[in-house]
Amino acid sequence: MSNRWIQPGDNADITMERKKATFDVEKMSEWIYGGKQILDRRREILAFVKSVDDFKDPVPVEFMSREDRVENGTRKIVKMTDNTDQIDGSDFFGEGMYYQSLVMGRDLHPLSLHYVMFLPTLQGQTNDEQLDQWLGPAIARSIVGTYAQTELGHGTNLSKLETTATYDPKTEEFVINSPTVTAAKWWPGGLGKSSNHAIVVAQLYTNGECKGPHPFIMQLRDIETHKPLKGIRLGDIGPKLGINGSDNGFMLFDNVRIPRKNMLMRYSKVLPDGTYVAPAHAKLGYGTMVFVRSIMIKDQATQLGAAACIAVRYSSVRRQGEITPGEREVQILDYQTQQFRIFPQLARAFVFLFAAYEIKELYMKVTEDLTKGNTELLPELHALSSGLKSIVSWETAQGIEQCRLSCGGHGYSQASAFPEIYGYAVGGCTYEGENLVMLLQVARFLMKAAEEVRNGTSNLAAICAYLGKKGEGRSKLSHHLDYTSDQIIADLEHVAREQVFRAYDRLKAAQQHLRPEDAWNSVSLELSKASRWHVRLYLARNFLNKISSAPADLKKVLIDLAKLYVFDIISASSGQFLLGGYMTEQQLDQIKEGIYSCLANIRPNAVSLVDSWDYDDVELKSVLGRRDGNVYEALLKWAQQSQLNKTDVLPTFHKYLGPMMKEGRSKL
Amino acid sequence: MSNRWIQPGDNADITMERKKATFDVEKMSEWIYGGKQILDRRREILAFVKSVDDFKDPVPVEFMSREDRVENGTRKIVKMTDNTDQIDGSDFFGEGMYYQSLVMGRDLHPLSLHYVMFLPTLQGQTNDEQLDQWLGPAIARSIVGTYAQTELGHGTNLSKLETTATYDPKTEEFVINSPTVTAAKWWPGGLGKSSNHAIVVAQLYTNGECKGPHPFIMQLRDIETHKPLKGIRLGDIGPKLGINGSDNGFMLFDNVRIPRKNMLMRYSKVLPDGTYVAPAHAKLGYGTMVFVRSIMIKDQATQLGAAACIAVRYSSVRRQGEITPGEREVQILDYQTQQFRIFPQLARAFVFLFAAYEIKELYMKVTEDLTKGNTELLPELHALSSGLKSIVSWETAQGIEQCRLSCGGHGYSQASAFPEIYGYAVGGCTYEGENLVMLLQVARFLMKAAEEVRNGTSNLAAICAYLGKKGEGRSKLSHHLDYTSDQIIADLEHVAREQVFRAYDRLKAAQQHLRPEDAWNSVSLELSKASRWHVRLYLARNFLNKISSAPADLKKVLIDLAKLYVFDIISASSGQFLLGGYMTEQQLDQIKEGIYSCLANIRPNAVSLVDSWDYDDVELKSVLGRRDGNVYEALLKWAQQSQLNKTDVLPTFHKYLGPMMKEGRSKL
Repeated sequence: MSNRWIQPGDNADITMERKKATFDVEKMSEWIYGGKQILDRRREILAFVKSVDDFKDPVPVEFMSREDRVENGTRKIVKMTDNTDQIDGSDFFGEGMYYQSLVMGRDLHPLSLHYVMFLPTLQGQTNDEQLDQWLGPAIARSIVGTYAQTELGHGTNLSKLETTATYDPKTEEFVINSPTVTAAKWWPGGLGKSSNHAIVVAQLYTNGECKGPHPFIMQLRDIETHKPLKGIRLGDIGPKLGINGSDNGFMLFDNVRIPRKNMLMRYSKVLPDGTYVAPAHAKLGYGTMVFVRSIMIKDQATQLGAAACIAVRYSSVRRQGEITPGEREVQILDYQTQQFRIFPQLARAFVFLFAAYEIKELYMKVTEDLTKGNTELLPELHALSSGLKSIVSWETAQGIEQCRLSCGGHGYSQASAFPEIYGYAVGGCTYEGENLVMLLQVARFLMKAAEEVRNGTSNLAAICAYLGKKGEGRSKLSHHLDYTSDQIIADLEHVAREQVFRAYDRLKAAQQHLRPEDAWNSVSLELSKASRWHVRLYLARNFLNKISSAPADLKKVLIDLAKLYVFDIISASSGQFLLGGYMTEQQLDQIKEGIYSCLANIRPNAVSLVDSWDYDDVELKSVLGRRDGNVYEALLKWAQQSQLNKTDVLPTFHKYLGPMMKEGRSKL
Repeated sequence: MSNRWIQPGDNADITMERKKATFDVEKMSEWIYGGKQILDRRREILAFVKSVDDFKDPVPVEFMSREDRVENGTRKIVKMTDNTDQIDGSDFFGEGMYYQSLVMGRDLHPLSLHYVMFLPTLQGQTNDEQLDQWLGPAIARSIVGTYAQTELGHGTNLSKLETTATYDPKTEEFVINSPTVTAAKWWPGGLGKSSNHAIVVAQLYTNGECKGPHPFIMQLRDIETHKPLKGIRLGDIGPKLGINGSDNGFMLFDNVRIPRKNMLMRYSKVLPDGTYVAPAHAKLGYGTMVFVRSIMIKDQATQLGAAACIAVRYSSVRRQGEITPGEREVQILDYQTQQFRIFPQLARAFVFLFAAYEIKELYMKVTEDLTKGNTELLPELHALSSGLKSIVSWETAQGIEQCRLSCGGHGYSQASAFPEIYGYAVGGCTYEGENLVMLLQVARFLMKAAEEVRNGTSNLAAICAYLGKKGEGRSKLSHHLDYTSDQIIADLEHVAREQVFRAYDRLKAAQQHLRPEDAWNSVSLELSKASRWHVRLYLARNFLNKISSAPADLKKVLIDLAKLYVFDIISASSGQFLLGGYMTEQQLDQIKEGIYSCLANIRPNAVSLVDSWDYDDVELKSVLGRRDGNVYEALLKWAQQSQLNKTDVLPTFHKYLGPMMKEGRSKL
């Protein structure tokens, strides 16, 4: 088989690995990305990005100060959005995401919120007149906007936001104010230094009554000088665990007046005399959130895949320890413990990516249904996307760290790119809905479904159909080699169903003696566990389904990945499968044997499996994960760029160490 | 009860929490640190550090560039070691560690390796003449040394180091050389820019024969100019996940000549004619490693305790969501899921700290035994310390991340200190022996013990005595409230014993058809699992023992912590306890109920429990973890110091965003 990843001058070990593959890498890449056409387009985009000098970093970003990093990112993002005729940056799920990750790396940038929140909010929440006024300038980049909702003291519970917008009918203005420190807007990307406009969410007061949080558009900085406007205090919120190229900001208002028409009025309105007009229909805000999450899940899968790619490639060229005394040291990928650290992460990356595709498909379907007034699937899809976001982001973060640790000391160096990948990806556990809060949202949906089943009024959503099934009392697993997809699904369904009803029964029991919210709180560990199993079941079923339609010659290695994913889950939670005698100890032994055999099967294909994700070195930005495997020379070269190596002798010698040693000599 | 942690002006919620405590905080602090005298001494050291202006950072280190951070650290460490008359810095396990953490924070510094490795190696490996020559200058700080062993391509397997030291009898010199890029010394702390000397480990060649790795002392930089000497190429290895105040370095030698007497000759020798004299006794190198690990474990416990302290305090002042509609938002510490995220970490911090004490005690005992020629306990202690290092560092890292995630968005900010704590602590999974390698070392020890039991030749070390016990076939747990320490230990012993023999049997079976090292590799997952249970058992037993001698009025809350620790372990690995019908499902339900009841019991004591670790704000360096609970004002103040806030309008506006928006306006 020809293999585009093998090139002259490559490390001999990595070439040997590539020659071992039992499947066609290019074919796998096509399958992963949805066809030759999309893969070709990826490569066009890559070639374009490589051709533009302005997209290059003068030094890798990890050597930059925060100021330089923000400046470098600003330079690149302006250039990137100059080129919208070449790349459809608005296709966030598809080529837009790839284009951005190639140009911007693992960083958000001063225009992130402009595109992801400011523009869509204008499109969704303005009336026609407002749309005419604001959309053109926003699209033309003649203003830069952000979205300011979260406050220093307030996150998910919007009803408690403190920023006020008090209507003054005398001047037909709103007075925007931050009554306390905790009312400070906090976190919005690009707010600190880059944006000159924002959608600000504030409690609307009119005629002495609070009407709850509403969105307002505000100018923040002078168009010409970019200085903050009077009454507005803003700045950067400081360094974070990751994403430090973004100037997330804070903002406080001191009774700032804005015209009445700056309230976004597609739904609610305030008339000139202060009369509040409530929206005709409750907002259907779910859709956008689902779409954003499908993007997040794809992005997370891509980060986890990158981490696995780095770890697998490095483990194939790193030699350490002797299995046979006297012989050459072995590739560390030969250690079973190393395989078990990395391969399940690779399997997860596959599983998560295909979940992202599926969610996006469902989103498209639901959006189409919505135009026909059919909102039936929306709660189901919303719950699913919340749960997936939670499980995927957490397992991605853990998986990245396992990959990093598998690379030993070099994994700790920023040359590996792992610190950057982790800092970026793990943010996903917190933003767009804190993970545990998300799991409890899924649980609300599951408890409703469980209630329906128990009441016999079952009209279950497809995704919950398993809750109404009877199921078998015993797992049918006989031998790991014969463990069919149907049996796997039946086993996961059993455990998910048991956990959902266990949580349901405990909730009902708690409700006997506690107020509803206290009862809910008292069983929240069981509830979140139910959500986890519901999502795991979905992930496994979805990936097994996808594999069933994969090209025949790819199936074997894909099934190894899918089984490893499932076996790892079962083995790590064996107690759940032993309960009620559902599985026997012999069956669990089979699961273990299955893990060993999957690891052994994946071993010769490992490098080609990560190659098939089609990461270019420009995208990976990892010295350890280089395509050519020549990591050591590259590490030495990378280190030369350290900020501390600009001079042979640091000022610390002249100021501190030199005098100290001189004094020491004088004492001898 | 009086409570020194309550002060006027504190956040009302945190004061309320402190008033709820059911135990005396000061008494708990004394118990944690080993008595009033030690606690008083801590506070003297704290007062001293606060009194020295030179120990203050001009801005928090997270706002510094790497260069500034290294410079700031160098300034402080020189000042810190100026004051050795006031603080016994050499007592690394005790006040030295505390002093350093107060002054240096979560950073190593240019003299770390000088004190931790260079000095002790001189003391341990030189002959008398060499000691006279080098020890004085090293102690007087007239030279700065480091320890250069690890190479770019070689870590734990010392026999494969590539740096050569070839003896030339004509000139009575060694020629030190790096034959390849992978031979580059890599990682030594302080090597990049600060040290002018190093102990260099190289393969000794004399009379054409390789005698394996040996230590040599070398001057690296000119004493007056600090420029690298001829033939030595060195520099900083670049930024890392954490500990960026340290200039970890690389070094390559181009046939550098050093006198014969620069080989450290306490054990092996090379005579002037090149004759190699082997050491009379094999080196007993274990002792120092055990001591270093006891320090690491104490340090890790301290980091995890700090993370729990930050999370608990913040969760007591953060209010979000309503449990009772219409009422004030609740303290997030009231959510069961939040408690379950944080409290087990707090419990672990206790368990780990007392394990560190115990290991240090054992180390002292073994050291005493060694002077009497008794080496019996050494392998046992070495295995134990390896296993503890592995389990403690990994669970600490995971626990820190759970604490960080529990603080939502603010946990992601460097204001929380979590990113710094994590970056620092998680390094412990890799340095001083990679964790999985460590677990497999423990497994070698366990397999020998298992073999003895099976052969009936049992002369088991005390720590393995449980392997020779018969044990009960069924757990005696009846109700979580009556679950005694003895029963807990019996249950953990059962599971550890079963896993050790499961691994042993699989190993024996694999040895039937595989070469020994391949057999070992093929069961390494089972082996590492056996090591984990062995260590967990030790940790639980040790803490339960300690509690038994605690003051009566502290016992209740300590038992809640110990039980939570154990219940969490059992619940997370319930499959292991169900195997063979050892526990019933009813017993596992009791464990779950036990978790809920421990969480509820700990809840009112949580703030006081973290207070009792006696962290000063100077040590925590966390805006979220402030003693006074006034986090929001402090966050706003912290953010003002952001590098990006030095000016209202960044150059990015004039260079990029301004022209972009101007062009946009021209198109409208």
